Amino acid sequence: MTTSSETSLSDASLAAESGNRKRVLSGMRPTGKLHLGNYMGALHNWVGMQDEYECYFFIADYHALTTDYADPSSVKQNTLEVGMDFLAAGLDPERSALFIQSHVVQHAELHLLLSMITSLGWLERVPSYKEQQENIVGKDLTTYGFLGYPLLQSADILVYQPQFVPVGQDQAAHVELTREIARRFNGYYCGKKSEDLSEVLPEPQALLTPSPKLPGTDGRKMSKSYGNFILLTDPEDEIRKKLKTMVTDPARVRRSDPGNPDKCPVGDLHKVFSSPETLAKVYEGCTTAGIGCIECKGWAADSIVAALRPIQERRRPFEENPELVWEILEDGGAKARKRAEQTMVEVREVMGLSPRRRGSIGT
Amino acid sequence: MTTSSETSLSDASLAAESGNRKRVLSGMRPTGKLHLGNYMGALHNWVGMQDEYECYFFIADYHALTTDYADPSSVKQNTLEVGMDFLAAGLDPERSALFIQSHVVQHAELHLLLSMITSLGWLERVPSYKEQQENIVGKDLTTYGFLGYPLLQSADILVYQPQFVPVGQDQAAHVELTREIARRFNGYYCGKKSEDLSEVLPEPQALLTPSPKLPGTDGRKMSKSYGNFILLTDPEDEIRKKLKTMVTDPARVRRSDPGNPDKCPVGDLHKVFSSPETLAKVYEGCTTAGIGCIECKGWAADSIVAALRPIQERRRPFEENPELVWEILEDGGAKARKRAEQTMVEVREVMGLSPRRRGSIGT
Repeated sequence: MTTSSETSLSDASLAAESGNRKRVLSGMRPTGKLHLGNYMGALHNWVGMQDEYECYFFIADYHALTTDYADPSSVKQNTLEVGMDFLAAGLDPERSALFIQSHVVQHAELHLLLSMITSLGWLERVPSYKEQQENIVGKDLTTYGFLGYPLLQSADILVYQPQFVPVGQDQAAHVELTREIARRFNGYYCGKKSEDLSEVLPEPQALLTPSPKLPGTDGRKMSKSYGNFILLTDPEDEIRKKLKTMVTDPARVRRSDPGNPDKCPVGDLHKVFSSPETLAKVYEGCTTAGIGCIECKGWAADSIVAALRPIQERRRPFEENPELVWEILEDGGAKARKRAEQTMVEVREVMGLSPRRRGSIGT
Repeated sequence: MTTSSETSLSDASLAAESGNRKRVLSGMRPTGKLHLGNYMGALHNWVGMQDEYECYFFIADYHALTTDYADPSSVKQNTLEVGMDFLAAGLDPERSALFIQSHVVQHAELHLLLSMITSLGWLERVPSYKEQQENIVGKDLTTYGFLGYPLLQSADILVYQPQFVPVGQDQAAHVELTREIARRFNGYYCGKKSEDLSEVLPEPQALLTPSPKLPGTDGRKMSKSYGNFILLTDPEDEIRKKLKTMVTDPARVRRSDPGNPDKCPVGDLHKVFSSPETLAKVYEGCTTAGIGCIECKGWAADSIVAALRPIQERRRPFEENPELVWEILEDGGAKARKRAEQTMVEVREVMGLSPRRRGSIGT
């Protein structure tokens, strides 16, 4: 393992090819139907990792409760929607374990065990802690569970002993905390043991995944909370309607003003979803005022509709039979529990707990 | 359920006789071999409850880690010793579930789920929190796990949906916190549901158990940390030696001074362990200076040796074959998991988590 805590996707791919498949782990909160930002920021990257890595991808329903504990009535349906979007995006249950966090009770067990060695100060200093407490209004987040959510994330990761955690730059601090906890764990419990157990919880590396700028219809980052999103499930007419009202380069006031696609949210969408040919036409037409924004938005809508078509087609059979999705998530849970239990057997041993003699738990 | 949160053992016995057997739950940290104070303050009472109640008694190895996380090397052996003392004291695995906390992963799961609704302020205000942080030296207790230990206790209790929790007066505040958490849980998740689920986590009542004054050899409360204890496993000569150096009524300076058994730690031991006849002789002899303290201590040693004889006899086969103890604790764990899982199915449902379709967890 290198001393750096971060690595690029291509470095890691090389490492993966050179030996056994490395493990990666990542998760997503059940926020309901996913949008283009979720897709490009995470799912799209995950789909590309499935051959090179042993992958564990989960729907973080415990995490949903850290903020939405007062009304969890939509968690189950939202979990199903995210499960469908996982499958629609191309995550493949034959190659990757796709599962629901709460189906793998080892996440909760490791969370409790790691809580013993986790300084309160570490959690209080997580940048998003104070920030979210201030930003999320109407919810009382002065709870033990909310303070502990970065620790839960650490347990989510470490319970699979993965080499890599694909994350965006905004999550890098959480991976750092995970490494700090793993370091303390190994220091306390593995130093004096045999070589085999010298690192029960190896420090995973953040695998910084490309996440192109993906603005919502109002030009800000696409987000459920801003209401500026395009869903993976939006039908064509809905996508066209949303594009029509999308903000553009503010300097291009009149049709006859030339614009700059690099300063235009619609331009950003083109860069992600349009072909090189279309992109060339956009630059040429926009900067010379040869095309109007309406036309440019139409092309962007074309590209997005085309990109979403196979995703929406893959989603259809699952929408018609949600039971299929629950079954897939159940199978993925069994696979994940098996791997997680392997870690926990070692964790319990080095932490001095009494082994259970008859079989493992929760598998 | 009455509005009072506390009830006496005899009230509760009546309630138990009048209907189905009520459940009780209690636990003890694995501190190693138990002493007379542990026995009289808890075990002795538990033994007497086994016919009237459905009993769950556990060895709290997770709790040991809240303070001893830096060196848990003795947790496993201490767990075994406490298991032996449970059996030696007369806890009967045929009637009661005797088990190790960490073998029932539902404790950890409920701990995590209840963390979502537990105010940080509630935990910070638990009287023993600041007190222990100040009193326990040489251990860094500014950890997330130590702050959460009263919540873990609440989960330990509520996961069995018990009617009663046998505790000493010093633990009553913890049961109050448990009731507060249960109340919030039921308020959030059970109010609008069908009658069946109107109280998934009923508020348990503290069952204040008699705990006679049991001084150690230095006159302070008997405690492992004071080094003033008599173990249930102490052989006769060890008991006699410890009694010989025990402090007595400080007012009785000379052999010819009359003493007062009510102001004498040895008198307190007589009250617990000696027969009415011996006690009468003690009062008569001491208050008239008819006997010396040496003689009185000899009688106390006689009584304690006699009280411990059946306990030590019951312990012997388990000491010779510890495997028997592990097997009993394994069986108890299976029984406890079955009951705990019943609760968790309801908890997960009302908290909006997705049910696992294939079987239960960790049973």
